[in-house]
Amino acid sequence: MNLTGELLIGQQAVKGTHGTIKAVNPATGETLSPEFSGGTPQDARRACELAWSAFDSYRETSLAARADFLEAIAAEIEALGDALVERAVAESGLPEGRIQGERGRTCGQLRLFARTVRAGEWLDVRIDPALPDRQPLPRVDLRQRHIALGPVAVFGASNFPLAFSVAGGDTASALAAGCPVVVKAHPAHPGTCEMVGRAIQRAVAKCGLPEGVFSMLHDAGFEVGQALVGDPRIKAGGFTGSRKGGLALLGIAQNRPEPIPFYAEMSSINPVFLMPAALEARGKALGEAFVGSLNMGAGQFCTNPGLVIGIRGAGLDAFVEAAAEALKGSQAQTMLSPGIHDAYVRGVATLAESDKVREVARGLPGDGPNRCQSALFVATGEDVVADEALQAEVFGASSLIVSCRDAAEVKRVAEALEGQLTATLQMDEGDLEAARALLPTLERKAGRVMANGWPTGVEVCDAMVHGGPYPATSDARSTSVGTAAIFRFLRPVCYQDLPDALRPEAVKEGNPLSLKRLVDGQRES
Amino acid sequence: MNLTGELLIGQQAVKGTHGTIKAVNPATGETLSPEFSGGTPQDARRACELAWSAFDSYRETSLAARADFLEAIAAEIEALGDALVERAVAESGLPEGRIQGERGRTCGQLRLFARTVRAGEWLDVRIDPALPDRQPLPRVDLRQRHIALGPVAVFGASNFPLAFSVAGGDTASALAAGCPVVVKAHPAHPGTCEMVGRAIQRAVAKCGLPEGVFSMLHDAGFEVGQALVGDPRIKAGGFTGSRKGGLALLGIAQNRPEPIPFYAEMSSINPVFLMPAALEARGKALGEAFVGSLNMGAGQFCTNPGLVIGIRGAGLDAFVEAAAEALKGSQAQTMLSPGIHDAYVRGVATLAESDKVREVARGLPGDGPNRCQSALFVATGEDVVADEALQAEVFGASSLIVSCRDAAEVKRVAEALEGQLTATLQMDEGDLEAARALLPTLERKAGRVMANGWPTGVEVCDAMVHGGPYPATSDARSTSVGTAAIFRFLRPVCYQDLPDALRPEAVKEGNPLSLKRLVDGQRES
Repeated sequence: MNLTGELLIGQQAVKGTHGTIKAVNPATGETLSPEFSGGTPQDARRACELAWSAFDSYRETSLAARADFLEAIAAEIEALGDALVERAVAESGLPEGRIQGERGRTCGQLRLFARTVRAGEWLDVRIDPALPDRQPLPRVDLRQRHIALGPVAVFGASNFPLAFSVAGGDTASALAAGCPVVVKAHPAHPGTCEMVGRAIQRAVAKCGLPEGVFSMLHDAGFEVGQALVGDPRIKAGGFTGSRKGGLALLGIAQNRPEPIPFYAEMSSINPVFLMPAALEARGKALGEAFVGSLNMGAGQFCTNPGLVIGIRGAGLDAFVEAAAEALKGSQAQTMLSPGIHDAYVRGVATLAESDKVREVARGLPGDGPNRCQSALFVATGEDVVADEALQAEVFGASSLIVSCRDAAEVKRVAEALEGQLTATLQMDEGDLEAARALLPTLERKAGRVMANGWPTGVEVCDAMVHGGPYPATSDARSTSVGTAAIFRFLRPVCYQDLPDALRPEAVKEGNPLSLKRLVDGQRES
Repeated sequence: MNLTGELLIGQQAVKGTHGTIKAVNPATGETLSPEFSGGTPQDARRACELAWSAFDSYRETSLAARADFLEAIAAEIEALGDALVERAVAESGLPEGRIQGERGRTCGQLRLFARTVRAGEWLDVRIDPALPDRQPLPRVDLRQRHIALGPVAVFGASNFPLAFSVAGGDTASALAAGCPVVVKAHPAHPGTCEMVGRAIQRAVAKCGLPEGVFSMLHDAGFEVGQALVGDPRIKAGGFTGSRKGGLALLGIAQNRPEPIPFYAEMSSINPVFLMPAALEARGKALGEAFVGSLNMGAGQFCTNPGLVIGIRGAGLDAFVEAAAEALKGSQAQTMLSPGIHDAYVRGVATLAESDKVREVARGLPGDGPNRCQSALFVATGEDVVADEALQAEVFGASSLIVSCRDAAEVKRVAEALEGQLTATLQMDEGDLEAARALLPTLERKAGRVMANGWPTGVEVCDAMVHGGPYPATSDARSTSVGTAAIFRFLRPVCYQDLPDALRPEAVKEGNPLSLKRLVDGQRES
């Protein structure tokens, strides 16, 4: 495939005029060709204008047509074949098997949203028929459905160059909801972005949709991203990345003349609670398994276990010892970009220099650029409660073990935590009561609470919640993974006494979409 | 009933120490006793502390217990009898029949939420069972339910001293979701607030709930309200009132160390589109009916028809003439407060002084203080598109008729509108195509689109949307009236591989709550 480095605006490919972006192979430091040309705020406006002009038409596509489109995108991505995998590996430093798996997840996600669109439950149709004879006042006919918010600006993540980038979760859920999408391509994998962006362009054309349904822009600085979030035709945003970047864009979204929802998934250290009976029975095995989760993908997951909490004793000692041993032998993996590697090195150094933190082990240093040398530290529960800085996310394979005096201190640590994507209990049957006591805190703090697993690994399904209280995300009322993500881009509209000829299909008499609607308080079966 | 003018903090009644609030009968200008004592930020913190300590327990009350509580509140309000109606009439200037109707709506609303709580659909339970043999990776067991966000700060509205005040829609939906509530009492009807607040206190006690489930504070300035929205234990807010007040509190909610959702219902002018065939057939009748809606409750409804759009011609002339005639004879009704009356007089004067606006008619001036003299103006579509100031809400019985050259100009006016709670079509069969062309704009602009009715009158039911794009509200993804309002105060949590003994009831094996859950993509029947 011939990459051109152009901006994809509707069905056009346009050479950008504002700076250039060069992809770097983080494993070798080598610069990859071609150069990608950066867009201008003017390009962003053009993409938004096209998205706006496509909106009224796209949001009223039939459920079948919209589902077909999502499936067509999946097919076009698969048709890219090995070239996509090769480019994504080169740009991300991630292993081939991981990228292949991620491609499967990306396409599976698009197809799952197609199923969700077809089922139509997201329309949440509610009908309260007219009661002309009601006393003291008659009731009018009221019918509710959900409609798309408007064009959505999507900012992909570096750590999932496929599943959370151009055709990733935010794009899939926004398109499923009926929202045109303008993507700000990630500068760490611009070639992967172009390949996937062109696949979506082809799907738009094949499905006969208005071209503005999808555009993708490169940004050599921050101007394009800022212009997108500030554009009056953009009605929502999706972002996965750093807290700093997320908050900057959130601020723009909130301070526009018309504020818009902005879903930023930002930072999480995913506490793991080692309960006493589990620690006693299998402290060593837990320590080893923990390092497996910690090192996965060089620790570059939003759900990486960055904090492990247990009560001091032989069980915790065995855990720490086994974890240290496993860590010392772990190979350094390539990180996603020089920038992420630098931030990791700084974060680890900050922890190492803290007088409240003891270094337990480091992994092998590795050779070559941008390698992630794993790191493990210990601090006391008291210090973690007192010093918020110890909760700072270090993106990469670094974790802090928190040794507590007793169950009460474990609870205090849990209560002192910021909002999280996940919270994990390692527990045996003897821990049931202690776990029950901790659970209300954990579900207040996290979007996903699990037992006897590790937080890395996020299933794309109906029940998933990849979200959580601030600062894990900017909006705990939603998830960015799984089919419930569609609700982020919808709003309810009520139709009162509209002639049936004018009613949208979802709320028409006769139920042409065969939905299970809530009619007069009863669910249709 | 003996009013004491105290703050209601948990089960206590406490004399405030920060200023006083005096209720005024707007119909007579007479000051009503007693004096109400204002709270301090310290009182707000105390109420929030109690709410926080009640939260984990209250949010896990059984569906039945929570529904019983809502019904107990309704019964306690009804038990207040005529005394409540008398006080509310004295404090609001609203007629007795209106207050009686509003009491019915308030209690009906609490009972409707009780039904919604019991049905349990709001839990939105989704289960993806484990697939241990799935290739290439097994699937873990994932179960999602919704839980309450946390304690909610509620700011009541002046124009619904019962249905949108202490035990109004925001309180009912927050309590239904499992959120403790701290109300900032409205200074225009503090006695009504105290009576209803004490009724809720009694319901809390009778139901054996933790006292922090409900508190209510008077505020002689803005300190208490600001302290509530800024308190770290408050996790959401609900507000109905002016754009200025709503935006000030929204700013606090967004700029806290942990930002929270803040649902402000602010301003709307509720455009009514007079379609050509309807105008031709019944311009006169429409003009008369319009004035009926405009004058209802002295125009003090969020859904008051403040803008009427039609194409110039004999039909529109007949409409204007009939409306002017009806308006000239309309009695001036008492407005809710001197402050609201002053703002109305200023708003009408601003319109009257505009060189783009022609005054068509005024109502009777009335005698006595705070009377609302209705007002009707005309401007051209061209001027309304060009000058946003003509869209400013004038709270009260004032409306602007927009005379357009043709259908294209009507569309331009519609597109130039800010977000609205409602948009109305007056249409006959011959208007179907023209209405169809306008509909995509109207549903983008408003939360409720209606035909051949008037926007005043908001049914409390499953299908209602009382919400809409900014600045009608701060969050178009929700409604503040109707059962869907419960979703404002919920967030999803996913439970992964939790032992069944630890799972919340909603997601337990065996479905003890008999919910229709989404299991493996299929809805249980």
